Amino acid sequence: MGVSLDRDRFVAAMQTQAEIGGTDDGGLHRLALTDEDRRVRDWFREQMEAVGLETRVDEFGNMFGRRLGTDPEAGTILVGSHLDTQPYGGIYDGALGVIAALELIRTLDDKGVETAHPIEVVNWTNEEGSRFQPAMQGSGVWAGSHDIEAELAKTDRDGATVESELERIGYRGDAPAEPTHDYDAALELHVEQGPYLEETGEDVGIVSGIVGISWGEVTFYGEANHSGATPMHSRSDAMMAAADFVTQVRRIATTIGDETVGTACYVDVDPNSINVIPKEVTVTWGFRDPDATVIADARERALEEAAAAAKREGIDWEFEDRMDVDPVYFSDRCVDAVQEAADSLGLDSMRIFSGGVHDIQHATRLMDTGMVFAVSEDGKSHTESEFTSWEDCYSAANTLGNAVYDLATEE
Amino acid sequence: MGVSLDRDRFVAAMQTQAEIGGTDDGGLHRLALTDEDRRVRDWFREQMEAVGLETRVDEFGNMFGRRLGTDPEAGTILVGSHLDTQPYGGIYDGALGVIAALELIRTLDDKGVETAHPIEVVNWTNEEGSRFQPAMQGSGVWAGSHDIEAELAKTDRDGATVESELERIGYRGDAPAEPTHDYDAALELHVEQGPYLEETGEDVGIVSGIVGISWGEVTFYGEANHSGATPMHSRSDAMMAAADFVTQVRRIATTIGDETVGTACYVDVDPNSINVIPKEVTVTWGFRDPDATVIADARERALEEAAAAAKREGIDWEFEDRMDVDPVYFSDRCVDAVQEAADSLGLDSMRIFSGGVHDIQHATRLMDTGMVFAVSEDGKSHTESEFTSWEDCYSAANTLGNAVYDLATEE
Repeated sequence: MGVSLDRDRFVAAMQTQAEIGGTDDGGLHRLALTDEDRRVRDWFREQMEAVGLETRVDEFGNMFGRRLGTDPEAGTILVGSHLDTQPYGGIYDGALGVIAALELIRTLDDKGVETAHPIEVVNWTNEEGSRFQPAMQGSGVWAGSHDIEAELAKTDRDGATVESELERIGYRGDAPAEPTHDYDAALELHVEQGPYLEETGEDVGIVSGIVGISWGEVTFYGEANHSGATPMHSRSDAMMAAADFVTQVRRIATTIGDETVGTACYVDVDPNSINVIPKEVTVTWGFRDPDATVIADARERALEEAAAAAKREGIDWEFEDRMDVDPVYFSDRCVDAVQEAADSLGLDSMRIFSGGVHDIQHATRLMDTGMVFAVSEDGKSHTESEFTSWEDCYSAANTLGNAVYDLATEE
Repeated sequence: MGVSLDRDRFVAAMQTQAEIGGTDDGGLHRLALTDEDRRVRDWFREQMEAVGLETRVDEFGNMFGRRLGTDPEAGTILVGSHLDTQPYGGIYDGALGVIAALELIRTLDDKGVETAHPIEVVNWTNEEGSRFQPAMQGSGVWAGSHDIEAELAKTDRDGATVESELERIGYRGDAPAEPTHDYDAALELHVEQGPYLEETGEDVGIVSGIVGISWGEVTFYGEANHSGATPMHSRSDAMMAAADFVTQVRRIATTIGDETVGTACYVDVDPNSINVIPKEVTVTWGFRDPDATVIADARERALEEAAAAAKREGIDWEFEDRMDVDPVYFSDRCVDAVQEAADSLGLDSMRIFSGGVHDIQHATRLMDTGMVFAVSEDGKSHTESEFTSWEDCYSAANTLGNAVYDLATEE
């Protein structure tokens, strides 16, 4: 037997959350720990309380809602994702996984279904990592991957700390930011953020793991000078080295492995004026691959290219690693539960490796984990034009619900 | 006979202005029409009034101080530069030419020297063009190169207009922004902003003209997408095209002509996040050369490269010209006056073509013009580490003073 979520109620909840920080172009601008984040958190807490969940907020702002199980010995099944977004991101990323978890609780309540295992709904703090780095900060702290004091002290570009912003929006909670119960397994539903499910015509993705990642930034130090009066032979132009580096990050990604992706997508120029040769240009790199050795190799080659680019221009450079995450492989038990749920619903599915990182990878240290992917039309993500049809959202939510139900009712 | 400026008083005035908007690293951050600009303007007006100059501020904020001549038929000799700076620029750029003009007036007063021609000291509004474009805005309006209404309506990146900022700082004057007297000639002293004088061991530069310029911006329109989940073959990355364009601007400049310079030094990325493939990247180009046909050719080649870069990535692009200035050739009469002044002071000098644009080029439409260059150590400009020794400042100021004196006492 399975569960069947209420499609209309689920879609209505998705639409309601999409209005909190909604943009004129139909996206969401709801960066972590901003006023928009506070508003969606307030709304989400009300929803959890309305269905009688036992709610708590931990010291890092992670929000939990607990539904008790019938077996006092059974470990908790954790299910959720994040409600923060990228700058001018889409309405599905993160929110879909949280709202689906909420709808599962409502459906279980409606049907009066009890489960042996407790089920906990979660909204993790700062998954996106665009305002405060690193990404997946709240889940990382909770799982013990990061030191909480170090992460609370992280600042945004205006110098505000995570701690002060948590306090400002009223979400510096009392609960310890660590597993305060016995956890058995965790599942997360997320949009794919890539084109594979749509390209192959599947309804839902059975995620078998998550690529590893290397993020960092290279800064080139040229010499600021007048762009008109400085002869070409006298220049030390940080932008030239940065342009070379951007080009080589692409080349490395397209030659090093079949599944490798690599991007240089953040550039900061100082001074950034039409009339001044820049003295300092910072460029980021990001490589991802299912194989940790490929990622390490790509990072190494990128640093060699940065050194070569700086040498060509006769300037100094330095680099800083910003994130380094090993690939994750989900447990057979959870992957099978997701597969069986999709099969039982008659959905077409495929095994897929996630190109994006997700909160659940931190929990993988502590418990069995698995993921469900919803179709991303055109593979668009981190943009206002991100789109998943309500049918695809519902298929994935129902798959998640049934997989969680299976795990929660296991003896 | 000549004049000899008071070195200590001149240096003291330079040091005083350098404190208004001064930075911790010994530079100046005094962007046009900011509070810092207001403060230096207030100070400068006091100085002009203290020496009995007849002051006026025109509708575009240009500040004039007039010293009468003895011959009612003799045209005015205009001398000055600008007090605004680049973001975190140096203390000499612009200010040196204004303070030298002020010191000339003080010296003439001290000695009780009368001149046949009136002499006018000027501080032009917004020479730098970093907050509001175009550069040399005030002198351009005054000389009739630009329409005043169009320029007053220009906005900075926060949307403030030139007009509202002039009013806010109290420098939207009553005088018409046009030549309200008969002008005979104009001279401007400026730092070289390039390395030639120092490289050849000269004391001062006799400027024979100013390079022409083509400034513009290219915007590439890619598709915002998740930097991890989007396979390399599915990307439309605006940054890739921008990097190609930066590289080609350098290549064009180094192959098209001996004296050509070309720079792509402003890059704006949207969104600018470590985790999102950018959808929109804007890059500027700037080419300069003494020959107008070379500039036009460089601009044309750059646009072809932009088109090719966009095509390679399969994305759209567009461009906008931002400034287009023909090369300027100064009049023999003024160039000779500057040369004779340097010779009479026993200074080593060379003829030089200016790589930077200057306010005086607009006046060239209306009267005879010439320029003096002071040595720029290491050719550094538009940076806090810009440096000219007080000796070199004084040599150039004295050259200017004597050249103006010669022109002003001509029958």
